[in-house]
Amino acid sequence: KRRLMPLEPMASRLRFVMEADRLKTVLRGTTLNDASRHENSAEHSWHIMLWALTLAEHSHEAAKIDHVLLMLLLHDIVEIDAGDNPIHRDFDAADVEEQELAAADRLFGMLPPAQRDDFRAIWEEFETAKSVDAVFAKSIDRAQPLICNLESGGGSWREYNVTRAQIDSRVGVKVKRGAPALWFALAPRIDDWFLAETTAS
Amino acid sequence: KRRLMPLEPMASRLRFVMEADRLKTVLRGTTLNDASRHENSAEHSWHIMLWALTLAEHSHEAAKIDHVLLMLLLHDIVEIDAGDNPIHRDFDAADVEEQELAAADRLFGMLPPAQRDDFRAIWEEFETAKSVDAVFAKSIDRAQPLICNLESGGGSWREYNVTRAQIDSRVGVKVKRGAPALWFALAPRIDDWFLAETTAS
Ligand SMILES: [Ca+2]
Repeated sequence: KRRLMPLEPMASRLRFVMEADRLKTVLRGTTLNDASRHENSAEHSWHIMLWALTLAEHSHEAAKIDHVLLMLLLHDIVEIDAGDNPIHRDFDAADVEEQELAAADRLFGMLPPAQRDDFRAIWEEFETAKSVDAVFAKSIDRAQPLICNLESGGGSWREYNVTRAQIDSRVGVKVKRGAPALWFALAPRIDDWFLAETTAS
Repeated sequence: KRRLMPLEPMASRLRFVMEADRLKTVLRGTTLNDASRHENSAEHSWHIMLWALTLAEHSHEAAKIDHVLLMLLLHDIVEIDAGDNPIHRDFDAADVEEQELAAADRLFGMLPPAQRDDFRAIWEEFETAKSVDAVFAKSIDRAQPLICNLESGGGSWREYNVTRAQIDSRVGVKVKRGAPALWFALAPRIDDWFLAETTAS
């Protein structure tokens, strides 16, 4: 009398969201602002969605915030298989890309075909970083860890011996491209932090 | 020459998103699916946004998914001050409501006025649970912990000695109202869990 398993497409959708639970166990290079522990990619994803919504007005070009939020919601799912690669740690970009593509195949492939293709397209738009929405989304994804590091006393900057020039080239360029006002708000705080480090050492 | 602090409204927006970091330290009654630790309200918020997007087709009435996501993005922010109140634990509803209203005043009050009012209205729509979008959002917020408990071997059901009838009255009614197909997919698994418990004891 009772159905023991839900029927498709509900069943595959539930398997996908259950698998996604594992993003809560993927740890990032950065910590919470209070430095109490490393941040995971699920809570990071929530946080940058809130950042994007709150700072939407500061996008360089007018972004469709609803679409930006979809990108940020899905952008880190591939890390369930591929892990997080802290931007200041050395890694083989081609290797990471290959792992992330395989992860996208497997994870989005759990969904019904039309939805698989939708989610995959949103993820690829973010990765490609060409559209106005993706450029803004990327700028937010890069800016939030700056605050983690400033608030926690250096965080991954200290861990990976990052220089002020590397912040510009690895992070600043992308934040400025999507949200220049945000970069100009953060840059003086970053300057101060590095100045204090130089003075102290 | 340098601005040491960003200008308004950027400054207040950054203070708000920095304060929001604390939602990552608010622990819920439920655990990760693998039972390794309690879930926090920030990662829970991310997860139910993914649930909602993935299951949007199963909303009882046609929901505007973008608006549902905004509600779920903001719905737990008040817990930074008010804490999470596990649904199966006794609590004074009037007391919780008062704490959450004060939290909404303080937290959304950190934002520029127009944005404060926007965010507050989205949160109130969720709390009131009258609109089609809010009813679907609530159903998802109630359904995800069911999977946490099923996967982790009982979780907060076991901790609070919850009965099958209480699942119906506290959770089932709301899941069914917003996403009946989701409820009918989950109910047999819940029945099985309680049946196994009864047989075992
Ligand atoms: Ca809650």
